[in-house]
Amino acid sequence: MVVRDEARKMKLAAPHMAAASMEMRNSALAKIIEVLEENREAIFRENALDVQAAEENGVAQATVKRLKFDENKLRDAIAGIRQMIGLEDPVGKVTLERELDEGLVLKRVTVPIGVIGVIFEARPDALIQISSLCIKSGNCAILKGGKETARTNRILFSLVHSAAVAAGLPESCLLQVELHNEIDELLKCQGDVDLLIPRGSNKFVQYIMDNTNIPVMGHAAGICHTYLDEKADLAKSVPVIVDAKTQYPAVCNATETLLVNRKIAEKALPVVLQALTEKGVKLRGTKEVAELMSAWQAAGKLGNADNAAAYEVEIMGEDDFATEYTDLIISLKLVDNVAEAADHINKFGSHHTDCILTEDDEAAEYFLQMVDSAGVYRNCSTRFADGFRYGFGAEVGVSTGKLHARGPVGLEGLVTYKYRLIGNGQLVGDYVSGKKQFHHRDL
Amino acid sequence: MVVRDEARKMKLAAPHMAAASMEMRNSALAKIIEVLEENREAIFRENALDVQAAEENGVAQATVKRLKFDENKLRDAIAGIRQMIGLEDPVGKVTLERELDEGLVLKRVTVPIGVIGVIFEARPDALIQISSLCIKSGNCAILKGGKETARTNRILFSLVHSAAVAAGLPESCLLQVELHNEIDELLKCQGDVDLLIPRGSNKFVQYIMDNTNIPVMGHAAGICHTYLDEKADLAKSVPVIVDAKTQYPAVCNATETLLVNRKIAEKALPVVLQALTEKGVKLRGTKEVAELMSAWQAAGKLGNADNAAAYEVEIMGEDDFATEYTDLIISLKLVDNVAEAADHINKFGSHHTDCILTEDDEAAEYFLQMVDSAGVYRNCSTRFADGFRYGFGAEVGVSTGKLHARGPVGLEGLVTYKYRLIGNGQLVGDYVSGKKQFHHRDL
Repeated sequence: MVVRDEARKMKLAAPHMAAASMEMRNSALAKIIEVLEENREAIFRENALDVQAAEENGVAQATVKRLKFDENKLRDAIAGIRQMIGLEDPVGKVTLERELDEGLVLKRVTVPIGVIGVIFEARPDALIQISSLCIKSGNCAILKGGKETARTNRILFSLVHSAAVAAGLPESCLLQVELHNEIDELLKCQGDVDLLIPRGSNKFVQYIMDNTNIPVMGHAAGICHTYLDEKADLAKSVPVIVDAKTQYPAVCNATETLLVNRKIAEKALPVVLQALTEKGVKLRGTKEVAELMSAWQAAGKLGNADNAAAYEVEIMGEDDFATEYTDLIISLKLVDNVAEAADHINKFGSHHTDCILTEDDEAAEYFLQMVDSAGVYRNCSTRFADGFRYGFGAEVGVSTGKLHARGPVGLEGLVTYKYRLIGNGQLVGDYVSGKKQFHHRDL
Repeated sequence: MVVRDEARKMKLAAPHMAAASMEMRNSALAKIIEVLEENREAIFRENALDVQAAEENGVAQATVKRLKFDENKLRDAIAGIRQMIGLEDPVGKVTLERELDEGLVLKRVTVPIGVIGVIFEARPDALIQISSLCIKSGNCAILKGGKETARTNRILFSLVHSAAVAAGLPESCLLQVELHNEIDELLKCQGDVDLLIPRGSNKFVQYIMDNTNIPVMGHAAGICHTYLDEKADLAKSVPVIVDAKTQYPAVCNATETLLVNRKIAEKALPVVLQALTEKGVKLRGTKEVAELMSAWQAAGKLGNADNAAAYEVEIMGEDDFATEYTDLIISLKLVDNVAEAADHINKFGSHHTDCILTEDDEAAEYFLQMVDSAGVYRNCSTRFADGFRYGFGAEVGVSTGKLHARGPVGLEGLVTYKYRLIGNGQLVGDYVSGKKQFHHRDL
């Protein structure tokens, strides 16, 4: 397959896809549910072969678990599509309507972006979720999934695509790309592909960003912070820190760095670190934190000596704070106040999601205002940064860029707009000469 | 000056700029008006030196005219700032407010983008307009103007900057870059510069787009089309075509290609082309159009023979239709119907602004739906594509990209948003385990 030619074909089909009625797009989604249910056994069979191959190739057990597509995951995927059918149409919303002058009316109307390339990790439900989002939002999509779920993706794509076409959507509305080298072809399709959404490792996303002129939406790194303020309520805050770090450490919205106000360090750190180390979290931190911990340990402030090793803090340099662990490791640093915390986050963070734990309204407001991230939180876990949790139905990814869409990206992030101007023969010359004047009346 | 260091400084100042109250931003704009008025003589003096230098360097008279900053232009610039003071604050708008669960409230709030680099053509009012837009929207800005207005820009920048600082805005809110090679330094400031807005020639904008990892907003080309439909009202349509092509041919929203429905070619083309050639427009077109014109001329259908040469159509190839003339030249092609017109525009256009001239509602709706451009018009001149005419107060540029902002970009295109999530100790673990459930209630 020559990706460039297929992308060109898709580009020409995109206006037809964009013009498909919401009824047709929803009926495509309903048909997808049907064919998934009818073909469950075949899907599970293909998935079992993927899982078997992964096990034979010595893929880690945790990863193999993620590859499995079973009754529960199918049920969740179908529930997700059903929910999407119920969501409001993101296309055709009038976001501005203005009479520029008598009989000259401007409307800004939301429209699909066009052709979107999504490169996603090996997770069998990802293909269903992403293609459903694109169909609902009237976009054409080129899909490239992780190779460990190749067989599952192949049968899922064929079912989803045939259901979409059966509902009346253009043949070229969806395309599956399977070979890794085709990613590089895809990166060269500027002009035909309007947007790329890469998901996966930092290194992979960064590679995509560095090697294409197509706009890219996504995040290379998720370096999230939690700042424990002087006025934090410890009983409330400690479980939040533990949740933010340990509830699912492999994902981008897990906290990587804990900043602690120096004034409460002596009271708070022993409690916080006991809770974290009990969950198996390894500690890294500034020399100051390491020395404090040693001193406290020597003074018997850190509970029993059984887990002395667990309290050891590996000393890290300043630049190390720009590290995403996606693992049970946390970076620790003391700061003087909320201003220093915000500066640190703006300097070393990835503008993803950062939280302040405090009962002080002024410090909270300062933090929410000054931290330059897609999500700024008070008194809750950074793990909430997610399209489902925000009520978006689903997400295609999380954006740490500032343009277009920021944070979890759902249907709204998959549309743009066009200006429609309807006149009856108006000339610009008449307005330049002063013969006519704009009155700009919003309707 | 090391642009990278200055950009870093600006990046750290950006959250403070973003936190400046609307009162402070508006008072900075008011102060700018004051200092411009107080220093008018000095400004005109510097500008006269720019103009003199341009004349000595043999710059074309039309360009020299554009460099001049006189009483009229100063008055317009001040009127523009005054209008901007009156515009609604684009920052701090709540665009979503949702209770995810009891005591867990999500708000999406508009915020400035941060640090914006604007590279603009030699036009003395551009610096005032762009810096005012950035101040009003709470953004820091790096400004690089055309070298032909270097002296004018220098005094204007110094006045605007000192007024902004006097009003209480951060010292690093605005920076002027003067050397051409500093543009290349600017292109490498990813991480510190959030957005680049280049204005100028296609080649220049394309260079910027190809040589930076910073998001770029703008347009390289403005290849706008007007399609004369079978059901067009000729009396209404001919002046629109003339306005779209000739009112100001040097700009991006002037029409470059006229598509004519084959069924009305014989009736319409002679009239249209007579009107265009009277304005000095040179004709290019397909072989079919050239032959028709020759035949009509031979048959005496094109009026008197005096301007026989004017009616000559230079034959062009298919790919030539992707040409932006920014001059009194027009490309001509016949099409069978609105579908062929839309296909041609989507293939050869630049997704800027395109118009259908018709009295047929169905053809119009098809065109507005299927043409994939920032502006889709019916029965009016493509020259209306402009921030002032749309009532945006001012524009920083026109975007032909689809992400973030499309078409003329005013204050709304200079803001992004952040999600604020306020809780009282909520943990994601409780929602994953099923102990708690989201209720997603919009407030």
